[in-house]
Amino acid sequence: MSDVRIRAATEADWSRIWPFFAATVRAGETYAFPMDLTAETGRPWWFASPPGCTVVAEADGVVLGSATMGPNRPGHGDHIGTASFMVAPAARGRGVGRLLAEHVVAWHREQGYRGVQFNAVVETNTAAVALWQSLGFEIVGTVPGAFRSPQHGYVGLHVMFLPL
Amino acid sequence: MSDVRIRAATEADWSRIWPFFAATVRAGETYAFPMDLTAETGRPWWFASPPGCTVVAEADGVVLGSATMGPNRPGHGDHIGTASFMVAPAARGRGVGRLLAEHVVAWHREQGYRGVQFNAVVETNTAAVALWQSLGFEIVGTVPGAFRSPQHGYVGLHVMFLPL
Repeated sequence: MSDVRIRAATEADWSRIWPFFAATVRAGETYAFPMDLTAETGRPWWFASPPGCTVVAEADGVVLGSATMGPNRPGHGDHIGTASFMVAPAARGRGVGRLLAEHVVAWHREQGYRGVQFNAVVETNTAAVALWQSLGFEIVGTVPGAFRSPQHGYVGLHVMFLPL
Repeated sequence: MSDVRIRAATEADWSRIWPFFAATVRAGETYAFPMDLTAETGRPWWFASPPGCTVVAEADGVVLGSATMGPNRPGHGDHIGTASFMVAPAARGRGVGRLLAEHVVAWHREQGYRGVQFNAVVETNTAAVALWQSLGFEIVGTVPGAFRSPQHGYVGLHVMFLPL
């Protein structure tokens, strides 16, 4: 994966993110996004405003995945960050998710955040849970049945946290 | 408290909610709202759009408190609700918070939600924690140091949940 680089996303990248973003939302197994998003209405759900930031993982001019990150809450909660990431189906199993995850943690550390929190990791998304745990995240708690998985029915949502 | 009634908030109520909303945000001990909200920019942080709903607790034409409620997440998470509530300083200790809390739970039950989740209950807000626990909510987990309390420094944020 030495040829994959991570860079800030530009508005022009959206047309390359949207196909796998839409496929991920449509599959409905990993994120609680509205199910009726279009390329137009979906963009603000992914592109973060400063002080947040959105990046893409790219190899040979092809966007393989994307991550978005920034403060988890405003005001007196803005010292804790959060992030989401998605990998294009065709690029799965190549370590792109791990590269993005490591970038997310490094970014928060550089920006001076005191921790990174995931508010809603679907418990059946075991690849994501294992990836975050391998980076030091712990499951703080699980809200039972808080997500409707098309495949698994009502499943829990983990709150995960990494202190920095 | 038999004279206190709870009714849907109207746009005209905002000018009566704003003073205690602003005081609560400014105190900065209980909610992670942006600290620079104005009466104009604050309104969408409190008024919920359908299917959510915002109510006021009123007695003798005076608004004593307000609560806002609705789905905690979109899409495959919208079967779990969430809520926030605030009581005017002058009305505290009169049971207005409990009345609003009971209304919030009843509303979610009537609307067919499968549970109510609070994402960020400040652990030093012991009155709120005790109130929710008395209604059956449990602490699912606590994100350590996720809130900067002016009085207490870095304190935890509880995720609380009531299955319905």
